[in-house]
Amino acid sequence: MQAPEFLASHASHVEKVLINTLKTRRSVVTERLIDAMSYSLLAGGKRVRPGLVVECFHACGGKEIEKTMAAAMAIECIHTYSLIHDDLPCMDDDDLRRGNPTCHKKFDEATAVLAADALQALAFELLAASEIPAELRCELIRTLAVASGCQGMVGGQMLDIQSESDSSGIDILAVERIHLHKTGALLRWCCEAGALLAGANEEQFDACSRYGKAVGLLFQIADDILDVTASSDKLGKSAGKDEAQNKATYVSLLGLTRARELAGEMREIAINACEALNGNGTQLKSLANYILERDS
Amino acid sequence: MQAPEFLASHASHVEKVLINTLKTRRSVVTERLIDAMSYSLLAGGKRVRPGLVVECFHACGGKEIEKTMAAAMAIECIHTYSLIHDDLPCMDDDDLRRGNPTCHKKFDEATAVLAADALQALAFELLAASEIPAELRCELIRTLAVASGCQGMVGGQMLDIQSESDSSGIDILAVERIHLHKTGALLRWCCEAGALLAGANEEQFDACSRYGKAVGLLFQIADDILDVTASSDKLGKSAGKDEAQNKATYVSLLGLTRARELAGEMREIAINACEALNGNGTQLKSLANYILERDS
Repeated sequence: MQAPEFLASHASHVEKVLINTLKTRRSVVTERLIDAMSYSLLAGGKRVRPGLVVECFHACGGKEIEKTMAAAMAIECIHTYSLIHDDLPCMDDDDLRRGNPTCHKKFDEATAVLAADALQALAFELLAASEIPAELRCELIRTLAVASGCQGMVGGQMLDIQSESDSSGIDILAVERIHLHKTGALLRWCCEAGALLAGANEEQFDACSRYGKAVGLLFQIADDILDVTASSDKLGKSAGKDEAQNKATYVSLLGLTRARELAGEMREIAINACEALNGNGTQLKSLANYILERDS
Repeated sequence: MQAPEFLASHASHVEKVLINTLKTRRSVVTERLIDAMSYSLLAGGKRVRPGLVVECFHACGGKEIEKTMAAAMAIECIHTYSLIHDDLPCMDDDDLRRGNPTCHKKFDEATAVLAADALQALAFELLAASEIPAELRCELIRTLAVASGCQGMVGGQMLDIQSESDSSGIDILAVERIHLHKTGALLRWCCEAGALLAGANEEQFDACSRYGKAVGLLFQIADDILDVTASSDKLGKSAGKDEAQNKATYVSLLGLTRARELAGEMREIAINACEALNGNGTQLKSLANYILERDS
């Protein structure tokens, strides 16, 4: 199977369990929150993160996909909460997300802040309540908290905002630091979590970890390229926004040609990491290609 | 020891470990976030929540206070994140908290949103990384996530905001539902967590749980009374705000006299619950009295 197919299959799987999870939490207290959480959580998207969890799980010999669902749901809750907060007027101030009104536009700002807060809590609840062995459960919770907190995603978002208000001193290393934290830490977590859930040996775990780090940067470089080359229609959000905001990106700092080369190099690193997976890395290779070549 | 003394002692203990924790996470990535997180986390406060954890732990026979510190720190991280978000312009729009500028006033809105997000992640990280036995660690993480998420604190805050925009249908049961979720769920979690950490038997756990539920309501009724009777100076925030905002409170719905009676009844329930603790409930009784009689 190629990446678009297996991503769609995993996406449909994780969406089914998410819908069920949200349904069981609907009550007179949670009504409005569950509406807002569902609105953002089920607004489509390629579900690359659950895809990485499941495919790294498979690549390390994991069989039953059900075993990855708590981690797959948790990562989508964390990712979605970060999108809701990033879109707020005091942050990126975006009205559109995947072609639809952002959460604070559809509901209101207070509801958006709270729905995202509840999604973060739900991520940890789902992992903690899962049937994963307790020691591993704790390790996944700890590493997800680190990857999404001040030393990971939130730290990267803070750096990003700081760099926007003063982009004068931003070089390519600073841009890389932003993205290794802002998007990279979570993407890497997906790969490592998939490996751990499969009971990977050290070599397999390292391969998934290296793959995850390369794919994290690849993902962001491809995003920066798409912002320049794709239409708003395709992206489901405003294209050309980086340039309009005078934002330091891989493209603005390196030019389109060199950015494309760098993305190619990252893809090579990712694909090389798959070689350590004894022939089980085929779908991960397809996924790396897809992340580079996607058109939205 | 009376409540003000042992609360101060536990507060100083938990603040010391919090300061240390934040210090180890300071880096070029986290600099600004750690500043904002520390600013709000270490802005004083009575530390009633860690006090409840430690005292329920003691009341159930727990000895080494160190064993409660992960839970005590986690609950302060969750409580502080909720205050930061509640103070935002799109929520309660408060400029002052404990006599100092609120986080978004001292820093800016984006930093405040992110610092709070990072505090929530830190809460779960600290529990997950603790030396509590793994099964119990997962149970504490799961219950903290439930108590702080859409079915607990965040759900209560959402109800509170909804009731402000339309307070016409709000009766005393609706007010109680708001507070059982908004403040009650976390206060109860503190008591139950303290019991579990001490290895409480069923009777002890139930006593702490009943105590926690009563203290949760007592806390809020006392807060509503203070809003009417205390000065802004004492409170460190604007007094009389509930009335100015035409907010449904225990006092606005029941009058001051009946609200005081109800608080007294909650104190009785809390104190009665302590009787099941075989003479170890003395400090918990003192704490219930203090929560009712505090002047700020």
